[in-house]
Amino acid sequence: MNKNIISAIKILREESSELYLDREICIESDEITSLDFHRKYVSKNIPVLLKNYISHWPATKLWNSDYFRKIMPNKNVKVALTPNGYADGIAYDPDTKQEYFVVPYEQEMAMSEFLNYLDEKRPGFIPYIQTQNSNLTEDFEELMNDVNLDIDKATEAFGKRPDAVNFWMGDSRAITSMHKDPYENMYCVIDGWKEFILIPPTDLPFVPYKVFPSATYEMINYPASPTFKIQPLCSQPNDDEYSSDKIKWIDIDPLYPDFKKHAEFKMAHRFTVRVEKGDCLYLPSLWFHHVKQSHRCIAVNYWYDMEYDIKYCYFKMLEELCNINNNN
Amino acid sequence: MNKNIISAIKILREESSELYLDREICIESDEITSLDFHRKYVSKNIPVLLKNYISHWPATKLWNSDYFRKIMPNKNVKVALTPNGYADGIAYDPDTKQEYFVVPYEQEMAMSEFLNYLDEKRPGFIPYIQTQNSNLTEDFEELMNDVNLDIDKATEAFGKRPDAVNFWMGDSRAITSMHKDPYENMYCVIDGWKEFILIPPTDLPFVPYKVFPSATYEMINYPASPTFKIQPLCSQPNDDEYSSDKIKWIDIDPLYPDFKKHAEFKMAHRFTVRVEKGDCLYLPSLWFHHVKQSHRCIAVNYWYDMEYDIKYCYFKMLEELCNINNNN
Repeated sequence: MNKNIISAIKILREESSELYLDREICIESDEITSLDFHRKYVSKNIPVLLKNYISHWPATKLWNSDYFRKIMPNKNVKVALTPNGYADGIAYDPDTKQEYFVVPYEQEMAMSEFLNYLDEKRPGFIPYIQTQNSNLTEDFEELMNDVNLDIDKATEAFGKRPDAVNFWMGDSRAITSMHKDPYENMYCVIDGWKEFILIPPTDLPFVPYKVFPSATYEMINYPASPTFKIQPLCSQPNDDEYSSDKIKWIDIDPLYPDFKKHAEFKMAHRFTVRVEKGDCLYLPSLWFHHVKQSHRCIAVNYWYDMEYDIKYCYFKMLEELCNINNNN
Repeated sequence: MNKNIISAIKILREESSELYLDREICIESDEITSLDFHRKYVSKNIPVLLKNYISHWPATKLWNSDYFRKIMPNKNVKVALTPNGYADGIAYDPDTKQEYFVVPYEQEMAMSEFLNYLDEKRPGFIPYIQTQNSNLTEDFEELMNDVNLDIDKATEAFGKRPDAVNFWMGDSRAITSMHKDPYENMYCVIDGWKEFILIPPTDLPFVPYKVFPSATYEMINYPASPTFKIQPLCSQPNDDEYSSDKIKWIDIDPLYPDFKKHAEFKMAHRFTVRVEKGDCLYLPSLWFHHVKQSHRCIAVNYWYDMEYDIKYCYFKMLEELCNINNNN
């Protein structure tokens, strides 16, 4: 630990608490102007819940399991399957006695089969449509007319159209582990709710990272008697290639934080916000977020390219300070 | 010097050069919208020259020495007088063999007398109307109808009206030494030109500061045979009160930088921009600026309160890193 760096980080935390972070996530209505949205939130990298912003969209009336069974029962969908609900998260492998960062097993299936799994809520695997490759515009043309293909005031404020529009539907046991994205994110809940835990980028020093080997879930005996196996990306953990198959990921679960292991996480500003049917959350770039959801929650999110501006440059400096501190 | 801190500062400089700083000051016309102005410049803390933005104001047609002699020859005006043109700057006092931060001698006089001094350009003292206490709205009601009392798109973008509107008129020998202000600044030239040297706040590590004792210029034998004397704010330099009469000021002149004394200043990004009659410069909060001007240059500037947002919090952290570095 470097005491000079700690003193600078202490200043950043104190000033952040006092000056730029509110006590709770702000709420605005659809009457906010794009300029106010930019001035009060985007420019300051502050989240805001736009209450009932999309409740007039046809999707909020139409979309649910019954509707999807009716309009696209045989549609082929890509479903992430995991044993524990964590697609893109840390898992302990009893075989190798090691923790890995594991990406989900991806299974194509008919929409009706996916909906059956949701109805059954069977143990053994947890399904989640969460491909995040602009799957709404790429794969779900049946649904595109029920939503807007951008968030009007966000598009005006950011001065650009979204880079990707993603469709999400899944099990209440599915969790998105804490991470951050280099995107401005407009997150809309069509049915059910999502609950976000949010931590600002200025709290990077208090969010513990660790390097994990990367792996994917493999599955055998699907669908009769599905069994998962963690498959490391490289079968020879000690060879040279292995180093490219590691990833730095957050080493704490904000739902059950291990403060004995990571006391510093107590210092992070944690915000919780529930996004309900018809709401849109502005989740600013570089904010850490952890997400849980109601069963069969349906959502659509819009990723807009972030600006690599003065805030980002300062963040890169903070990252370097944290790296130095962790290596000392 | 602390090598860890230097490495973080190096990252900030590299990312700033590559990502957020342009090569030159951008120029926009009066067609820019308040949202574009906010997104492209205010939010990113980037200066921009709004070319001919105020050239339709009556002031740009009316204001000059002749007009002022005609409408307000006997008006009492407060004029800053200095021996060297530097109001609020560093000066060497041969009596005490010490450098001081010196504020100008302030003399009330008739407007016609001030204009005579400008015409004469006499050696011995340099006059400048530069009181910066919202003197346009407080002291010059004769002039208020010739300008707008805010910059419309700035007021929209900032979401507030200006805190102060200042009138400036002075000698080409008068220089504003490099400093920064905690204000968003809209700087309009009514007649003549001003030339700004600008350095971004992220270059704080390369801008040398030093603590100077404070002083004021006193003047004897005004106006017959004016002589200046540097008067320290406290006559007993070693007593306890003295510490409150010191000020941290920038220890370099960007027109004639002493790189032997301050090699680090070479690392600062320096921008030069000339603001001409009818132009308005957006000079963002916390940017270092040094200003010189044409003879009899007339200007009006608008200070808007800055936002104490995430950028400011990061800046405070950078300040702490610089303090640590300088004290090691």
